[in-house]
Amino acid sequence: MATSESQIIDLYFRDLGAKRADTVLGIGDDAALLRVPAECELALTTDALIEGVHFLPGASPRALGHRALAVNLSDIAAMGATPAWALLSLNLPAADDDWLREFVAGFGALAQRHRVALVGGNLSRGALSITVQLAGLVPAGQALRRAGARAGDELYLSGSVGDAACGLALLRAAGGGAAAPATATATAAEVVWLQQRFEYPTPRVALGEALREVASACIDVSDGVYVDVTRLLAASGCAATLEIERLPLSQALRHARGADAAGLALSGGEDYELCFCVAPGRAGSLAAIAEHTGQALTRIGTLQAGGALKAGGALTLTAGGTVMQFSASGFDHFGN
Amino acid sequence: MATSESQIIDLYFRDLGAKRADTVLGIGDDAALLRVPAECELALTTDALIEGVHFLPGASPRALGHRALAVNLSDIAAMGATPAWALLSLNLPAADDDWLREFVAGFGALAQRHRVALVGGNLSRGALSITVQLAGLVPAGQALRRAGARAGDELYLSGSVGDAACGLALLRAAGGGAAAPATATATAAEVVWLQQRFEYPTPRVALGEALREVASACIDVSDGVYVDVTRLLAASGCAATLEIERLPLSQALRHARGADAAGLALSGGEDYELCFCVAPGRAGSLAAIAEHTGQALTRIGTLQAGGALKAGGALTLTAGGTVMQFSASGFDHFGN
Repeated sequence: MATSESQIIDLYFRDLGAKRADTVLGIGDDAALLRVPAECELALTTDALIEGVHFLPGASPRALGHRALAVNLSDIAAMGATPAWALLSLNLPAADDDWLREFVAGFGALAQRHRVALVGGNLSRGALSITVQLAGLVPAGQALRRAGARAGDELYLSGSVGDAACGLALLRAAGGGAAAPATATATAAEVVWLQQRFEYPTPRVALGEALREVASACIDVSDGVYVDVTRLLAASGCAATLEIERLPLSQALRHARGADAAGLALSGGEDYELCFCVAPGRAGSLAAIAEHTGQALTRIGTLQAGGALKAGGALTLTAGGTVMQFSASGFDHFGN
Repeated sequence: MATSESQIIDLYFRDLGAKRADTVLGIGDDAALLRVPAECELALTTDALIEGVHFLPGASPRALGHRALAVNLSDIAAMGATPAWALLSLNLPAADDDWLREFVAGFGALAQRHRVALVGGNLSRGALSITVQLAGLVPAGQALRRAGARAGDELYLSGSVGDAACGLALLRAAGGGAAAPATATATAAEVVWLQQRFEYPTPRVALGEALREVASACIDVSDGVYVDVTRLLAASGCAATLEIERLPLSQALRHARGADAAGLALSGGEDYELCFCVAPGRAGSLAAIAEHTGQALTRIGTLQAGGALKAGGALTLTAGGTVMQFSASGFDHFGN
């Protein structure tokens, strides 16, 4: 059994992830040394998972390893950057070899898939929390930002939304902590799929890279479509209309949540899809990107000039052409 | 009072630290964008402070802000790199404006002093812990490493050691949690100075930069001279003899700990001095660096070939020419 920090690092973390020729010096010194190509900017982000806040006590360590890296990969993807190097700060209540082996398997598999090298970090004893820092590379001046969208641009989403929030509710129910949510007609396989959408989110890295050519602005959907679209609009100084019936909802979510599905898609977080804007008339380019990346891309709305809307903030929701009011409890006709 | 994550970021963290022309995009998007000069490598490190592990409950938030950045600056200094950009992951049990104001004051003052820009991070609710990631720049191929020292090199320490461990013991005693350690003849001012050596460590950034010209290997002393010298020796494949009576001990530490001072200097951590090796005959260069940086540099020993020592590991301690055995409980004549 590994007991000291250096033993744990040697057993589990040294050489985790991809080997990269641009890693001058990895784990084992006071800092890592990395080579950034002259034509690239460095994209740098960090995100943390805290037990009881971002995941349930007793959560699968393999899923945590995956998810801790995935949420950071999603941020890098939203910039249109290519992930390269990670640091990992792990606070553990105890050195549990089974837990560590599973955690490392989840982290390592995703790191390999995206050619990410783990080049440093630290281990401490404490309440379980996982902080990852991820560095990526993007051709100088070409990164996607939240700012940059303009009136007339079309608003798009990758994949489907609401699945992860539904999956988390199903995991909570399975853990016995809460009443089982209505699963209506969802099959057992659909329930598992929804849970995995929460536990094993798929960062849209290849999509982000491809979108550098066409998108005017981009954000990843970590806190729910409504909140994250609002952030993009604020950064771009625009307003938008989002057509609720266009939201990409999985069949599993429709089966599990019925009429609640669209509400969960708007308010539920953790989907890690990309939300982005493109100038009108780029449908052909997007179709090629969807084909190339194997990624469904759905137009959900249109941007307007910033000051065009009188009430309800920058984001207007419509259903069948009627303006709807959105709140935590669901939809209403605006003003009702 | 600030309540939401975005309010707290706007109030306290946006624009914290230095403005840098090479920051393309700072806080407020999915990732920061940074420009690394073509002639430089990127040095990347992370270190965390956990309540109850790395600091006492109720610790001064200003000191925590300083120290969370300082321990990372020390890693960058040990590489001979120049600090540039930081990310901050803060887990807080509650959003306390007084606490945040003090924390930011401590972090921000040190960041300004070293021209570090805070370019991202995240805030979560949870048990108090602070994780900082720091990126620095170093001319390609010139970074200081733990490896590189050779037999015959001389072993040096900056500043004085043991102060921080003594200061922590004094803080613990002041907090009422433990019996007051013997302060012998230390004055009240010396006690405060020792406590501040723990709470407000001074990273040796300018020294690290200057040592690129002369040092063959370098490490920062975070876990105690004995442990960290042993790490440097392992990385360099060398052995060494350390002359205990040469350890740089402050007058305050001698007053506070008397005969225990040298033991604390060897085993106590958190000093964040630099320990480094230089080829013999470079005393003139070091004197110039000491003068230029205002930093005391003390020769504490000499390196030998890796396999030269029969027992006691790679590091031999001597006092008055006699080999001493070192353990957690103090010194003995070797073999007694």
